[in-house]
Amino acid sequence: MGIKFGFASDNTAGVHPVILEEIRSANTGHTIGYGYDRYTEEALGLFKSHLGPETETFFVFTGTAANVLSLSGVTRSWNSVITASTAHLEQDECGAAEKFTGCKVLTVDTADGKISAKSVEKHMHGFDFEHHSQPLVISITQSTEMGTVYSVDEIRELAEFTHDHGMLLHMDGARIANAAVSLDLPFRSFTTDAGVDILSFGGTKNGMMYGEAVCFLKSGLSGGFKYIRKQSMQLASKMRFISAQYTAYFRDDLWKKCATHSNRMALILAGKISRLNGIIITQPVQSNGVFVIMPQRVAESVCKKYFFYPWDEKTSEYRLMAGWDTTEEDIEGLVRVFREELDRLK
Amino acid sequence: MGIKFGFASDNTAGVHPVILEEIRSANTGHTIGYGYDRYTEEALGLFKSHLGPETETFFVFTGTAANVLSLSGVTRSWNSVITASTAHLEQDECGAAEKFTGCKVLTVDTADGKISAKSVEKHMHGFDFEHHSQPLVISITQSTEMGTVYSVDEIRELAEFTHDHGMLLHMDGARIANAAVSLDLPFRSFTTDAGVDILSFGGTKNGMMYGEAVCFLKSGLSGGFKYIRKQSMQLASKMRFISAQYTAYFRDDLWKKCATHSNRMALILAGKISRLNGIIITQPVQSNGVFVIMPQRVAESVCKKYFFYPWDEKTSEYRLMAGWDTTEEDIEGLVRVFREELDRLK
Amino acid sequence: MGIKFGFASDNTAGVHPVILEEIRSANTGHTIGYGYDRYTEEALGLFKSHLGPETETFFVFTGTAANVLSLSGVTRSWNSVITASTAHLEQDECGAAEKFTGCKVLTVDTADGKISAKSVEKHMHGFDFEHHSQPLVISITQSTEMGTVYSVDEIRELAEFTHDHGMLLHMDGARIANAAVSLDLPFRSFTTDAGVDILSFGGTKNGMMYGEAVCFLKSGLSGGFKYIRKQSMQLASKMRFISAQYTAYFRDDLWKKCATHSNRMALILAGKISRLNGIIITQPVQSNGVFVIMPQRVAESVCKKYFFYPWDEKTSEYRLMAGWDTTEEDIEGLVRVFREELDRLK
Amino acid sequence: MGIKFGFASDNTAGVHPVILEEIRSANTGHTIGYGYDRYTEEALGLFKSHLGPETETFFVFTGTAANVLSLSGVTRSWNSVITASTAHLEQDECGAAEKFTGCKVLTVDTADGKISAKSVEKHMHGFDFEHHSQPLVISITQSTEMGTVYSVDEIRELAEFTHDHGMLLHMDGARIANAAVSLDLPFRSFTTDAGVDILSFGGTKNGMMYGEAVCFLKSGLSGGFKYIRKQSMQLASKMRFISAQYTAYFRDDLWKKCATHSNRMALILAGKISRLNGIIITQPVQSNGVFVIMPQRVAESVCKKYFFYPWDEKTSEYRLMAGWDTTEEDIEGLVRVFREELDRLK
Repeated sequence: MGIKFGFASDNTAGVHPVILEEIRSANTGHTIGYGYDRYTEEALGLFKSHLGPETETFFVFTGTAANVLSLSGVTRSWNSVITASTAHLEQDECGAAEKFTGCKVLTVDTADGKISAKSVEKHMHGFDFEHHSQPLVISITQSTEMGTVYSVDEIRELAEFTHDHGMLLHMDGARIANAAVSLDLPFRSFTTDAGVDILSFGGTKNGMMYGEAVCFLKSGLSGGFKYIRKQSMQLASKMRFISAQYTAYFRDDLWKKCATHSNRMALILAGKISRLNGIIITQPVQSNGVFVIMPQRVAESVCKKYFFYPWDEKTSEYRLMAGWDTTEEDIEGLVRVFREELDRLK
Repeated sequence: MGIKFGFASDNTAGVHPVILEEIRSANTGHTIGYGYDRYTEEALGLFKSHLGPETETFFVFTGTAANVLSLSGVTRSWNSVITASTAHLEQDECGAAEKFTGCKVLTVDTADGKISAKSVEKHMHGFDFEHHSQPLVISITQSTEMGTVYSVDEIRELAEFTHDHGMLLHMDGARIANAAVSLDLPFRSFTTDAGVDILSFGGTKNGMMYGEAVCFLKSGLSGGFKYIRKQSMQLASKMRFISAQYTAYFRDDLWKKCATHSNRMALILAGKISRLNGIIITQPVQSNGVFVIMPQRVAESVCKKYFFYPWDEKTSEYRLMAGWDTTEEDIEGLVRVFREELDRLK
Repeated sequence: MGIKFGFASDNTAGVHPVILEEIRSANTGHTIGYGYDRYTEEALGLFKSHLGPETETFFVFTGTAANVLSLSGVTRSWNSVITASTAHLEQDECGAAEKFTGCKVLTVDTADGKISAKSVEKHMHGFDFEHHSQPLVISITQSTEMGTVYSVDEIRELAEFTHDHGMLLHMDGARIANAAVSLDLPFRSFTTDAGVDILSFGGTKNGMMYGEAVCFLKSGLSGGFKYIRKQSMQLASKMRFISAQYTAYFRDDLWKKCATHSNRMALILAGKISRLNGIIITQPVQSNGVFVIMPQRVAESVCKKYFFYPWDEKTSEYRLMAGWDTTEEDIEGLVRVFREELDRLK
Repeated sequence: MGIKFGFASDNTAGVHPVILEEIRSANTGHTIGYGYDRYTEEALGLFKSHLGPETETFFVFTGTAANVLSLSGVTRSWNSVITASTAHLEQDECGAAEKFTGCKVLTVDTADGKISAKSVEKHMHGFDFEHHSQPLVISITQSTEMGTVYSVDEIRELAEFTHDHGMLLHMDGARIANAAVSLDLPFRSFTTDAGVDILSFGGTKNGMMYGEAVCFLKSGLSGGFKYIRKQSMQLASKMRFISAQYTAYFRDDLWKKCATHSNRMALILAGKISRLNGIIITQPVQSNGVFVIMPQRVAESVCKKYFFYPWDEKTSEYRLMAGWDTTEEDIEGLVRVFREELDRLK
């Protein structure tokens, strides 16, 4: 039996069979390329129904692309973007935002991946001063990279602060379905209705094969974006196969079933871990991630059977993710190995 | 009955069922993301076997990305890249090469999409002169955007010229399978063995769903490329689904079957068109495209039933593409409509 | 006696003493930096008086910067810029425009460095098509890199064509003073009044030390430009020393005296050369450059005494420039050496 | 009597008369442009004598350019650069580094503008991980933006740490002369000999008109840099006028006289301020800047007579700079106004 990857990330899972079936059913006959087809028309309509009638959606390939192009659409190179120091945008995109937009990315340290108006305040200076990058976008992640979830009020407060400064609020929604389930709210209520201006809407981490979405939630923001997408090498020729995935994803609330499952699995995992001596859960488990501190030796040994990533090597903190197909048997298997390795320490 | 798109482009076709089946069969269990999986290992090995043991291959999402990243991998921003004025790189990538690499793209006018050492000569100056972009790459397309195919000798001659100037030869192989079939040669003999240094290897236009490849054919060219791919937003998280497609594509020479078919369909189409009064074929039909001049009025009328793209509106030249799934009935249908519209002119 | 550089370029000359004296007189006491000083206010006002009241001027350091920033001010990365293949922008800026703006630079071959609406027509396609860079700027050089000068009518016709396509006309005026003298017209009549939208206004080649100007000739074009200038590393801290130069340059028409002189010297040089057997003048001498074809051996020998640059090594064409301080003795000296070397050939 | 700008910045001063005289004396006859002249040869030699024989120096126009091009010379876009959050590079260059290099700029908070190996440690992760920008340069400022000065040992320790990680140490020496005077050491001992790899060497803030230098202190770092300088619009055509300034700057230790004076003036100013009730000096005065906290009302009133910049509006901290031409009368005048305004508060 080889090493297991189910807890390493929510993208180690495959594709939900319903989504794959929809791809197959879209694989018939000829359609015009690049998104001018009926599959895409249908999918874009579904985004409007979920996020509001002003929503303009553009599919791209990856979550990194969704974030960077969201920013490209509204910034000029002399702007700055403010985000949490733990944000994917800051840590895990190899500088794509800087390279592609030319903007400066400013960070805010947080305890739980969530930024507040107060924490951002330190970057609110130098407006109209040509020596200083002009702050234009605040970017939050929902659910965050640390598994926490912003409340509607928190988002609304940030949006007000952002707009009071003439700025825009971006949400990285690579795991937005997990947040919606966690909040038990429709997407719209904590995005468009809470004041978010631009949204990276992800599906790959929740059962899709590929294809994320840049959603401009208010009119007037997407000028020129079709050129940005093409120039940034993110325009799919056989677009229908992204679109079909989203159609399946929204139909019968498949997204909700998947995210409900992975959130529940994370809670079960956290419950079992909380009963282990020697592993400490460091963040509230509000979506599908469980963050833990454990002895490095334990982590290294367990990783040989169930691989997972370090979150902060200096504090020996690790991340365990649940996905749409995580099983209780997986969890039991992982916890058993944890217990064995912890026992060995004694 | 709606408008038909089969001749608009070879990307209006869907996915070959064998490829879709391979995707399905790869959709089992967990694998680590981002290409560190066994499906990708297998696919990368197939590229070595087809292109030579030094080949280092990186999957990206689109043909534009394959071209731009091929160049990014070897250039610095002060270099220039020389290509045909009809090249996809020049005409159809919305300036992605300039934006992402910072390089200057220099062009050569051609009659048939094929450039020669002689035609490139005019850009061979200013070496070592800091005011002038330093020529570093010559980029050819095989088969070309005009449906023509370079012979091995033509490529070899260009490669020698290129290397004599301390430069590199890039091939845009978005339709490389059609060229291989046309030449009746294995890939390697007109790429690696003919002196090509970097290859954009495409599959989407020949039956795949998505996923093109950047192939460095000689060692020492791919330093830092993993960062380039990530920073350029082209690193797929669920990479196995690109890799599986290539595995199916190479197995049992599926690529050859598809390209043989589309090339043959183009020849049949050209044969029928050549018998029509009022339509002139402008290029030798060496792969899967047929270029024709016809009265604009005819084109517009036919396009309402069978959509296709103008190639040069000023000369009333149009492009008709055949794909892996074009049928003789399609062709007969198209030719019938041509005949009707030409008759109407009389 | 060393090698002489007076004909190599109009920037091998020093600084006109009146300009140096103005620098000295501005060197008193403290002024606020970065252009918020009274010297700059005065100089900017002079630009308005010469180019029209809507003119907004920003000083930068070099002619390359003036060109690139002119384009940066009005383009987005998915635009293209059309220019002559001989343009400084294309040949002599090491790809700065591509690197900094991300735009594609498209070229037009010309006989004399001057482009026409007709010649540009071939690039006028693909509007609104996301695969294609969107043409936005036509850039002409006045006087051209080949020493020729556009008439007011030629500029006006190009401006109309440009505006009819919703595009903007940029003029590279690195040698605009020579053009004004040649046309015997004020600057405004062949720039703002002829329909030019953005102007790179140069002085360094006509007696200044450093400091070129980006002039937006119509309102509404310079939004955000102060950030562009700073971010592009072109904002001078001790701006007063650029401004003072322009004040001296415009006062008592110093610019005109200098350019009248260099144009006249070029004519004298051309007159003498035209009487030499074995050297052919290839362009009308309309400003301060003389283009000649001569045997390569002659050029190489002469260059050891009077250095000048090859223009096109393939045709053995060379460029001889006159400057604000060229003397008739210089010319006689140069012509004498030409004669000697030509005699040696016999 | 108008508002006085002498304490706003060390660039509100004019040009030292000796430097201006050297410019005048270089203004004779023709020289080849772009730095291939004897003035530049002499100046570059002086840099070697001050910084070591491996030093390769390139003149650019501004301090921002010197910093950004220093980084461009050694980084690729997927690298990151680590600096103090107060660094000019981070705060005052409008994102030029990000725009031009594509790199991510990471920051470290400091009390006094000086970073330590320990403080940088938090960014030392993700090496070889393609999702993460690869740390390559640590950039320090000497003297710092807060008027403090690194000791040789501090620099040496940072250099060792940097090199141990396979990284490079850059020094922003916009005020390097003030640091040299403060340390009473030759330039070389706290740059090249202490392990610094790349240096932005400034003169404009210490009596020059314009023209800063990028110095590669070790061989093997400057490959391709001549193209970077040209493409970044920083290649001066009449280079001799930058070079002459540096020749005068180094001759008879003019740099030292100027910096000794401005450092001394800062100390005198600090001494007088320290005797004022209501103004607190916040940083050790080690070079030519004095940082103070005072009531905002006082600052605003004083600024109407002696303009200076806020450093941190939130804490009511201000910066007072002394220059090469600051007089004791200036200082007395300023202190008198401070006293008046403080008295008014009572």
